[in-house]
Amino acid sequence: MSSDRLIYMPLGGAGEIGMNAYVYGYGPKGKERLILVDLGVTFPDMDSSPGVDLIFPDIQWLADRREQLEAVFITHAHEDHVGAVAHFYEQLGAPVYARAFTANIARRKMEEFGYSEKAVRVVSPWPEVTKVGPFTVGFVPISHSIPESSGLVIDTPKGRVVHSGDFKIDANPVVGEPFDPELWASLAKPGVKALMCDSTNVFNTHAGRSESSLAEDIQALIAGAKGMVVATTFASNVARLKTLAEAADRAGRSVCLLGRAMRRMIEASVETGVLTSFPKTVSPEEAKDIPRENLMLIVTGSQGERRAASAQLAQGNYLGLSMKEGDMFLFSSKTIPGNERGVIKIMNQFSEMGVDVVDDSDGKYHVSGHANRPDLEKLHDLLQPQIVVPMHGEHRHLREHVKLANSKRMQGVLAVNGTMVDLTGNRAEICDYVETGRTYLDGSVKIGALDGIVRDRIRMALNGHVTVNVILDEEDEPLGEPWCEIKGLPETGNSRAPLVDVLEEDLGQFLGRAGAKVLTDDEKLEDALRKIARQSAQNEIGKRPEVTVVISRLAE
Amino acid sequence: MSSDRLIYMPLGGAGEIGMNAYVYGYGPKGKERLILVDLGVTFPDMDSSPGVDLIFPDIQWLADRREQLEAVFITHAHEDHVGAVAHFYEQLGAPVYARAFTANIARRKMEEFGYSEKAVRVVSPWPEVTKVGPFTVGFVPISHSIPESSGLVIDTPKGRVVHSGDFKIDANPVVGEPFDPELWASLAKPGVKALMCDSTNVFNTHAGRSESSLAEDIQALIAGAKGMVVATTFASNVARLKTLAEAADRAGRSVCLLGRAMRRMIEASVETGVLTSFPKTVSPEEAKDIPRENLMLIVTGSQGERRAASAQLAQGNYLGLSMKEGDMFLFSSKTIPGNERGVIKIMNQFSEMGVDVVDDSDGKYHVSGHANRPDLEKLHDLLQPQIVVPMHGEHRHLREHVKLANSKRMQGVLAVNGTMVDLTGNRAEICDYVETGRTYLDGSVKIGALDGIVRDRIRMALNGHVTVNVILDEEDEPLGEPWCEIKGLPETGNSRAPLVDVLEEDLGQFLGRAGAKVLTDDEKLEDALRKIARQSAQNEIGKRPEVTVVISRLAE
Repeated sequence: MSSDRLIYMPLGGAGEIGMNAYVYGYGPKGKERLILVDLGVTFPDMDSSPGVDLIFPDIQWLADRREQLEAVFITHAHEDHVGAVAHFYEQLGAPVYARAFTANIARRKMEEFGYSEKAVRVVSPWPEVTKVGPFTVGFVPISHSIPESSGLVIDTPKGRVVHSGDFKIDANPVVGEPFDPELWASLAKPGVKALMCDSTNVFNTHAGRSESSLAEDIQALIAGAKGMVVATTFASNVARLKTLAEAADRAGRSVCLLGRAMRRMIEASVETGVLTSFPKTVSPEEAKDIPRENLMLIVTGSQGERRAASAQLAQGNYLGLSMKEGDMFLFSSKTIPGNERGVIKIMNQFSEMGVDVVDDSDGKYHVSGHANRPDLEKLHDLLQPQIVVPMHGEHRHLREHVKLANSKRMQGVLAVNGTMVDLTGNRAEICDYVETGRTYLDGSVKIGALDGIVRDRIRMALNGHVTVNVILDEEDEPLGEPWCEIKGLPETGNSRAPLVDVLEEDLGQFLGRAGAKVLTDDEKLEDALRKIARQSAQNEIGKRPEVTVVISRLAE
Repeated sequence: MSSDRLIYMPLGGAGEIGMNAYVYGYGPKGKERLILVDLGVTFPDMDSSPGVDLIFPDIQWLADRREQLEAVFITHAHEDHVGAVAHFYEQLGAPVYARAFTANIARRKMEEFGYSEKAVRVVSPWPEVTKVGPFTVGFVPISHSIPESSGLVIDTPKGRVVHSGDFKIDANPVVGEPFDPELWASLAKPGVKALMCDSTNVFNTHAGRSESSLAEDIQALIAGAKGMVVATTFASNVARLKTLAEAADRAGRSVCLLGRAMRRMIEASVETGVLTSFPKTVSPEEAKDIPRENLMLIVTGSQGERRAASAQLAQGNYLGLSMKEGDMFLFSSKTIPGNERGVIKIMNQFSEMGVDVVDDSDGKYHVSGHANRPDLEKLHDLLQPQIVVPMHGEHRHLREHVKLANSKRMQGVLAVNGTMVDLTGNRAEICDYVETGRTYLDGSVKIGALDGIVRDRIRMALNGHVTVNVILDEEDEPLGEPWCEIKGLPETGNSRAPLVDVLEEDLGQFLGRAGAKVLTDDEKLEDALRKIARQSAQNEIGKRPEVTVVISRLAE
C-alpha cells in the first residue's frame, strides 16, 4: 500500500480555455484507479480549424486505460465541461455522475446518441458523497453562471483534493445556491492537500460583481425602451434569463424565448426544480400579434453565431419576427475573444435597420461567471491548501495563478494538458508528460488535429486549387494535351490570357520534352507536373496553388 | 453656373473601418470636376477573405471618370489612407498631394511600382493652399497617432467643406503639431457648410487622453524591469516610439528597432525633419553583445501578425535575438477587433518562455489616436458646420454620429460607401447611389470581392475537395472505373473503408447504369457525378465536399 500514489493530469482545459477534462488517479504506479472530471468541447474557427464541427480533448491515454476508469464526474452543464460526454461514452465505458440539472442536460446529449438515461447517475450535493474505487467524491454547491455548478471534494487515502470547477463568489446569484463561505471553510477542517482551481479571470484585479447587481440597470433600460426589445445572453445563464424576463414583465412586456438552446435550458431548469418562478412566456406565433412596445424577445446568439436567432434577426427575420427602426437590441453578454467580427457584423446589420444596439461596454448589463483575482484569493484563504494547481486557463493564466499561489506561500504547480502531477507527498512533483492534442469532430468522423486534413483545407483556402489531368496511351506517351481545372483562382492573370490556357501551355511543353524515365514513373511525373503548375501560376497570378494531379494510363 | 453642384461620395471607409476613399465634386451634374481624399487599404482575414493579400475600395466609378479627376489628397500616412495610392496611380492618372512626411511614405510606395517621385507633390500646411480646378485645398495640422496628420479645408464656389481626416484633440502629442483650437476656430470664420468627420470612437464617452500622458507609466515600468524589455506598438506611431525609446534610455538601456515598417517610419521622420531627437539606436548585431538588462527592443507586430518581429520572437528567435525567463514584453497598443486570437497566441508563447507580458488592460500604456465623443463635440463646436457627414466608421458609428450632430441642431447625414450627397443648397440631399464594393489584391491580380473566387476557397476550406476523374472511349462508354482523389477530407469514414473506395464504388455503379443521353452530355454527366460524389461523402463522412469533375473523352 505504501507504493500507492495520487496523481492528477489534465487532458484538456489546462493551457487553453475550453474542452475541460481532468484525470485523477490513485493506486500503484501505472495501475492507478482513475476518475475523470468533466469532458467538454471547444469550438472551431476559420483561422485554425475550418470546416470542423467540434473540438474535443484527445482522450486516447484514458481510452487505453478504460479498465482503470471508475467514473466521470461533471461539475456543471456548460458545453466546455459536458459537451463531449456522449461522444466518448462508448469509448470510455464509465458511468457519468452529476447533479440533477447537469444530469438533465447530459441525458439529453446521451439520448441523441441512443444511450439510456441510466448512463447518467444523479447525485445529491454535499454532504452526500459517491464512492468509486479509492475515491470519495462530493459535489459542493458553488456559484457560477449556470444552475447547480459544483466544486468537487475528492477524498483519497493520501488526503483531500478540492476541484473548484468554474466558479465565482456570489452571495446572491438570483438562481441557485449562493456561495457559502462557512461551508467552504468547513471543507478545510481535515486539511486540503491540493486545490485545482479555475484561472480564467486571474488577471482581473477587481472583486467580482454579483449576478443580482444587474437587475436595476436592466430594468431601467427596458422600462425606458420605446419599441420592441430583444436581448441576448448565454442560453445557459438561467439567472440572467430570469432577470431579463422579470424586467420585461415589470415593464408590461410579454416575454418570448427564441432559440433551441434557450428553451432547452429553461425546460431543464423547470424539470429539475432549479427555477421556481419565471414570468409566463408566449410562443413566437403569439408574439406576432403583440404590439412591439409590449414585447420582449430573449434570443440565442450572443456571440454572433451565424445560425442563431440573433444573427437571423439581423438578417431580417426569425420565425416571422423582425426588428425595425426604434427597436432595441441588448447584448447582456461579453464577446468571447475571437468572436468580435461576428458580433460586430450583426451590430452593424441592426444599425442599418435603425435598431439601437446596447452592449456591455459600460459594464452595466453583464457580469462574468468566473472568479477574479481577489475572489481566487478568497477561495485560497478559505481552503488553505498546501498545493494550488491552476486549471481552466491559457498558459498565461495558469502561470499568473501559480505566481499568485507562490506569493501566498502555497506551492503553485504549472501543469498544462498532458502533465502528470504526483500529489502523494507533501510537495507536488511532475512525474510524467503524456502526448496529448485535440480531436476534431468533422462531419460524422473524428479526426486528429494534426492529421494534415485541416492543414490541406487551410492551404486550399489560401492558395486555391488546380486539377491537372494527363492521359498516357499504351506506349506511355501523352494522349492529347494536359487539361486543367481551377477552383478559387482568378480566371485571368498578368498576360490577360485565361489562366488555364497558360497552365496547359506550360504543362504541354513539359510533356512534349519529357523522356520515358519521367513518363513511365507516376511519382516523378506527378511531382514534375505539380511543380510546373505551381511555378506557372506564380508567374501568371502571383500565387502557388494546391495541385491535384490525375494521371490516367490507358495501358492499365 | 447656377446649375453647378457640390457633391460628396465615399467609396471606402464609410460603413467600415479601413480603406478610406472620399470623392468630392464640383460642376454641372455628371460633369463635375473631382478630387479624391485618401486612397487606403484594409486587411484580409481567414473568415471572409482567405488568401487575399490586400483589400482596396472599388474605385471603378472614379476610374470611369478619370478625365474629371483633378488630384488625390492624402491626409496622413496610415495604410488605411495611403496604402492604395501606388496600386491605382496608373488607373487614376492624377497627381497625389501630401505634406512632406506623408509624401515620403507615399513615394516609397510609388517607387516599388517604378513610378517617379514626381508622382507625389509635397505641400506646406495651411495657410498655404493648392488650387485644382474649382477646389482650393489646404492641409490643416491636426493631432493623430502619426506625424503630420491633417484635416483638409476644401473651398468651393458653393462654400467651405472641412474634411477632418483621422484626428484626436491632443495639446501635447510628443511628436508633431499640437491641436490648435484657435487655428481651428479661425476656419469657421467664413462659415463651414459641411464637416466630414472621423467617427471611429463616437461610442467612447470619455474625453481622449494625450499621447504625453503615457510617458510616466512607461518610464516606471521599464525602470523596474529586470531582464530584457521588448515593446511593440504601431510602427507609424512615431511619438510612441520616441516615448518608449526615451524611457529605455533613461533606464540605461540601449534601444534596438526591429521590423522593416518601424525602421521605415523612423527614416521618413528623420528625413522630413519631423523627428528632431531620438535616442541613439543599436543594430540587431550590436544588440546581441549587450547584456539583456541593458537592452530594449522595440518591435513590429502589435496585432500578432504572423511574420512580424513579435511573432517571430514568440516562436523563439528574430535575427538571432531571443527572449527568456525574466524578460518582459509590453504591448503598448490595443488589439484591433478581429486580431484577438493572434495576439493571445503570442502572449501564451511568451508565457511558456517565462516572459512577463504586460498589456494595456489597465489603460496605462496606450492611448487611442481618435477623437472620443466629447472631442468630436469639441470639433463640432469650433467649426460650427451646418452639416455633419460622419465618415471613417462602421454603420453603427456613422449612425450614432448622425444622432449626435442632430442633437446639436446640425444636419447629420448618414452616407455609406456609394452614397452621393448633394451639398449645394442649405441642406444636404442624397442624390444618387452608386454600386460599390471591394477589390482584392490576390497575389499579383486584382479581383472583385464578389467574383466567386474567394467564395470557392472558403467552400473548399469548409468542405474539402474531391477530384472525380472519368474517361470515356470513342463510343462514349466509360473506359475503366472512375477515379477519385481527395484533399482536406478524412481518409476513412463510417464504414472504415477508404473514402475514395466508397466514392469510386458509388460513382462506378452510376456509370454502369447511365444511358447514352447522360454519357454523351458533358454537362449532365458532370452534374450527376458531382451529385453522387457529394451524397456518397455525406453518407460516409457527414460532409458534402466541393467536387471537380474531369471528363476525358478519347473521341475528341
